[in-house]
This record gives sequence, structure tokens and C-alpha cells, in this order.
Amino acid sequence: MICLTILGASGSIGQQSIKVIKDNIQEFSLIGVSVNTNKEYLDYLIENFDTIKYVCIGKKMDLDYYKKKYDNITFFQGDEGLSELCKIKDNDLIVNALVGFVGLKPTIQAIKSGIDLALANKESLVVAGDLINKLLVENDVEIYPIDSEHSAIYQCLKGERYPEIRRIVLTSSGGAFRDKTIKELENVTVAEALEHPNWKMGSKITVDCATMVNKGLEVIEAHHLFNFDYNKIDVVMHLESVVHSMVEFNDGSFKAQIGTPNMEIPILFALTKGHHLLKYDANLMLNKPFSLNFRPIDFQKYEALLLAYEVGKLGGSFPVVYNAANEVAVEEFLNGKISFLSIVKVIKECVRIHKKVDVSSLEDIIEVDKRTRIVAQKVCKDIVGGII
Amino acid sequence: MICLTILGASGSIGQQSIKVIKDNIQEFSLIGVSVNTNKEYLDYLIENFDTIKYVCIGKKMDLDYYKKKYDNITFFQGDEGLSELCKIKDNDLIVNALVGFVGLKPTIQAIKSGIDLALANKESLVVAGDLINKLLVENDVEIYPIDSEHSAIYQCLKGERYPEIRRIVLTSSGGAFRDKTIKELENVTVAEALEHPNWKMGSKITVDCATMVNKGLEVIEAHHLFNFDYNKIDVVMHLESVVHSMVEFNDGSFKAQIGTPNMEIPILFALTKGHHLLKYDANLMLNKPFSLNFRPIDFQKYEALLLAYEVGKLGGSFPVVYNAANEVAVEEFLNGKISFLSIVKVIKECVRIHKKVDVSSLEDIIEVDKRTRIVAQKVCKDIVGGII
Repeated sequence: MICLTILGASGSIGQQSIKVIKDNIQEFSLIGVSVNTNKEYLDYLIENFDTIKYVCIGKKMDLDYYKKKYDNITFFQGDEGLSELCKIKDNDLIVNALVGFVGLKPTIQAIKSGIDLALANKESLVVAGDLINKLLVENDVEIYPIDSEHSAIYQCLKGERYPEIRRIVLTSSGGAFRDKTIKELENVTVAEALEHPNWKMGSKITVDCATMVNKGLEVIEAHHLFNFDYNKIDVVMHLESVVHSMVEFNDGSFKAQIGTPNMEIPILFALTKGHHLLKYDANLMLNKPFSLNFRPIDFQKYEALLLAYEVGKLGGSFPVVYNAANEVAVEEFLNGKISFLSIVKVIKECVRIHKKVDVSSLEDIIEVDKRTRIVAQKVCKDIVGGII
Repeated sequence: MICLTILGASGSIGQQSIKVIKDNIQEFSLIGVSVNTNKEYLDYLIENFDTIKYVCIGKKMDLDYYKKKYDNITFFQGDEGLSELCKIKDNDLIVNALVGFVGLKPTIQAIKSGIDLALANKESLVVAGDLINKLLVENDVEIYPIDSEHSAIYQCLKGERYPEIRRIVLTSSGGAFRDKTIKELENVTVAEALEHPNWKMGSKITVDCATMVNKGLEVIEAHHLFNFDYNKIDVVMHLESVVHSMVEFNDGSFKAQIGTPNMEIPILFALTKGHHLLKYDANLMLNKPFSLNFRPIDFQKYEALLLAYEVGKLGGSFPVVYNAANEVAVEEFLNGKISFLSIVKVIKECVRIHKKVDVSSLEDIIEVDKRTRIVAQKVCKDIVGGII
């Protein structure tokens, strides 16, 4: 029986994690959740999981209402509340399914509390990989990645030795616009950017897939998770999202993890701390003809990916800037303020004008993130105004 | 430095093993070889590897000639000689690349001598799997499979636990006639049967691929090598022979081993006793678009495969009969005596009329093999004569 807490329970990964737990209720005890604003879903959770003892909500004004309604539950609120949830020692595992930079503090807190993490929040590792790796060793904590690509690499590395490995190869579907030329991308709409060919996901990550910033973040995440140099991390386009990633060995042998594009498989693997014990009928159709198609990446089209390699190699505060600029730009795009192609322009400009600073502490990272967001807002305005 | 002997050095797998050793001469010391009749190749080997101290040749009449020509080498001859080679304790590894039933005795002898095996001779395991597994435990010996499919499964099982595995899935190219209907198979020629779409191999195994007897033998081999029930072993057709086989876990996650259709990769893996340390540029073209295509197996067309499952489940002497009948029938086909479709007819008839007997000793197995060959010869004649 694994006692766990889900941060971001009402999001896409959160809800799929809830389903996995519900389907395997004899294996898991859900003791805590965080939900930002989705009240209906929170009520559903509390009514369906009588094991829930700790809840963090987004808005302070709702706190009294909830405390009165469910008097057997301890309520927390906001960023501070998320960290409080991660201090509860009853947890065997914390599922961090928060989206964006906001996931960082809870990741750090969970590790400091000595609690293993099932991590969907890739931004934590992107902005604070070195710090997190140091804390993982100090606190003897393990991270089980939920990202399908990193789950795949984790699975392929099982039982293997680093000196035998030539490189890891992340696969990428190419996102919503993989068949469009750069010219055609000039006037794409928000609705078009949210049409992922293979996966149903939240809106931020779906836009990140279309720009391939998501793959860029994943390259940096992989670097920190698996301790490979950037020149040993490659990306190949794979149209069906069935081969989730690969490891190549010195002798030219590859190992790949394969499965239907269904996040419940990597979630199940992470929630069981890296095992395949629980049964799940994923139904990879071996009883019908099917094809798996691969193409090289067009780095000219996907310059955000190339830029991720650059900021990753530069290290320090650069990945923080890459991530913060992207978060601001995607929000502005989703709000209809800037065009699709402007997202990457904003990131490039923020990276271009950034001077590297030390980010060895959490406070340093938060400071760089904050400053970058102000800069990125201004860059967005300058782009709209035609100044950049 | 691994000291090794290659049985069947002039065959297809043998010559590729020699190439692997030559390319990594600092890692290996080739101390023994067996060559049946290819004198030129034997001279080449002795002249190029001054580490060779033991040689087994096929024909008794050549023995004096060789003893005189190379007086610093110990020569053996024939079946007995193969077994003598497998008694030489200097060997860290014996590569059994013999074709067919003749490979069995050397396999048994190597194990009894406590020497690890790199096994390309799948027939050993097919006809004597239970006996071999008993001897492996008693003598603390390991088998490293060279068959690309079994090498793939071996690699995918590394670091994994049996209770987490749902099934193993062998891939099959479908052989030379995968695009022909049963009707069209009636008049195919020997030359056509020897045209494998992806692999360059010896003639016996190439015909076995076209009938899918080869995949049948591999299913039985996998059963013994990895200790899976037959209902946990599946086969899927995969046109490009790039995904060499797969393991499915309980949660619907698959692990696959992937590589160009090049036997040097599994040979390198087996010769290094299950490692990927040595560099080899196999050049899986990730820098070009490519497709991997899969289809379900048509068991009506490939009844030899279905029959292999049946004889495997029946166990005992049945797999010996399946193998012996096939060896006789393939030889008769290659000699132009029977038609392609008759090969499987011969096997089916031999299996149909066989009464199961105990095969717990090597002698039992040799006896069943011998009797089946006589029966199979008669069945061939009866088919040609229109009696069957």
C-alpha cells in the first residue's frame, strides 16, 4: 500500500493519476491533493476517497467555506500550502503534476522531507536540475519521471551500465504543426495550436509541443535525470508517439520502450516506483497491421529545440530564463496577445540579453525567474509594437 | 581477453563471428575452430590467427595432410572431434554456429566442461531444452543466444523481474514468400526460397524462414532459454527486421531491442557475454525518414508455426521429430526432390504418426532423431509418389 499526495490533481496528469489510483485502490491510499480552482472536482475527490486527510486549495477566500464543509480534513492554501503538503511524513510518494515554475518549491520541499517523487513537473528539473540532484543525494530520495519519454529512458536503462551507452534518443511527435512550413505558421490560431496529433493534454504543454519548446525542456530534463552530456542526447521525430524513446549502446544496439500514447502507462510505472506489477490493458494493436514512422528533426523549423541545447550547455541561470520567457509568451499567445511564431522570438530575445548569474540556491532561481518574467512581458509588447 | 573456439567457423554466423573477433582482436583470443570442408577458409584462419591451437575438420582423409602442414596445431576430426574441442578448458566461451542436429552433442559437451556458450545452434535447445537446462544449472554455465530475436529478448529482460512480464513477442520478417498466397507457393523454386528480404544467411535457415519453421524453432528455443510458457510467447510479422523482438509487461508497456538487420550486433553481444562495451557503427539511419511495419501472423498460411506451438506444448520427443523431419525435408527440397509446400507436409505427417517417448538422456534424443530421419525419407518418397 503506497500512501500518496497528488499536486495538481484536477489537471490532465492529475486526473489520469486519480483514475490509475481508483483502478488499483487496493494498492494506493490517497491522503492528500492540491486543486487550484476546480471546486467540483475537489468535491468529487473528497467524496470518493475517504482516505484524503490533507487538501491544498488555490484561493484564500474559499478556505473558510471548505473548513466548515469538511471538518475532518486539514486545509492549506496557495504556494505555502503546497509546501506544507510536501512536509507530511505519511506520504510514501508525492505526485507533482503542477504545470510550470510553480512546481519547483514543492519538488524541493518533498525532497527535503525525504519523500520520493513521481514527477510530471519537468520545469522543476529544467530550472533547478543541479540543485535538485544535490538534494536527492543528500536526502536519499528517488525521482520517478512521468513524462512518457523519460519514463521510457528510465525503463530502457534498467539493469544497464553507463559505460555501455552511446546516447539516448528522445522521440517527438512534432506537435500540431509538424506538417506546416515556417511560412504557414505565421497565421496559425490558438485553436489550431491546441490540436495535438496523438496526445490529449493541458493547453500549456500542447502549445509547447507545437513550438517544440516542450522537447527542449525534455532534453534539459533528461540531462539532469539521467546524467548524460548534451552531446549524448538526441531527438528524432516519430509520428505515432508509440516508441516513447530509445537508448543506443556502443555496439549499435538500441533499446526502446513502446506503448499506445496513453499517459496511464507511465503514471502507473511511476506510482509503483518503477515497476510493471499492476495489470493494465493498454491494447497495443498487434492483431492489426500498423506502421511506425520516423523522420529527422528539422532544426531550422524548430529553433526552440536548438536553443534548448544552447541554454542547457550554457547552464546556470540560462535554462531558468528559457523557461520563464516561454511561460510568459505561451500565456500571452493563449490570451490572443501575441502570434504563435512570436513565442520563440520572445524566448530568443530574453536569452540573448541575459547575463549569466549564479543559481545555486532556490532564492537565486526564484529571483531570475521573476526578473525574466518582467523582461519577457516587455519583449512581448515590443514585438507587438513592432520594435523587435 | 576472452579465449574462445568457434564451431562451424566457415558458415555464415561463423564467418561473421570471425569478423567481429578480427575487428576487436585486443579483446579476444581465438584458440580453436571447426571447419567442415572449406579448406581455403581454414587456411585463411590459421594464417591470420596465430592463436589457433586446436582445429576440428570434417573429413578423416584430410587429417594427415593438415597434421603435416601445421605441426604446431592439434587436429581433431568429425563428430567426435567437435566434442573434443569442447573439452578444452582454456576456452572461456564456445561459439556454437553449427547448423542443425549435429550441434547438439558439442553443446552438451561444452556445458559438461563448464564452458559458457554463445549459441547460434537453436536446434540444440529445440531437441534437448529440458536436458540442457538441467545441465546448465548443474554446471553453472550460461548460454548467450546469437539468434537476433533471442538476443533481443535477452537484452530486454536485463534488470527485469518475471512476475512483471505479460509475454514475449518474437518478430518475424515473414521470409521470402511473405507476399505470396498459399496457391502461389505451389510452384516456387529453390532459388526463390533462398531470397530472404532482409538477412543474408545460410541456405537451410533461409528456407526455414520461408516456411516459418525457423520461427517455430525459435518459439521452442525461447521457451527453453527464458522459461516462459508457450501461451506467453507470441509472434508478430515485422517487415523490415529492425525491431528484433519485444517484451510486454503487465501494464501494457513494451520494451523492444532495435537495430539494423546485421548479425554482427547480436554476435558482438554474445561474444562479450552480454555486454555492449565494444564499439560498432551499425548505422541505424535516424538521419533519414524510415518506417517500421507490422502485421499479424496468418497462421493458416504458416501452419508450420502453429505446429511448432503444438509440438512444444506436447513436449518430450515431439520437438525432436519436428526438427528431424524438417532437416530431412529441407535437404530434399534443396536437392530438388520435393516441392516447397511438401516440406511442411513431411513435418506434419511425421508428427502425426509419432508416439511420444521419453527423451531424458542424450542417447534417447539421438535415437528419436535417427528413427525420424528414416521415417521422413519414406514420407518424402510417398509424397512424390502421390501416396500421401
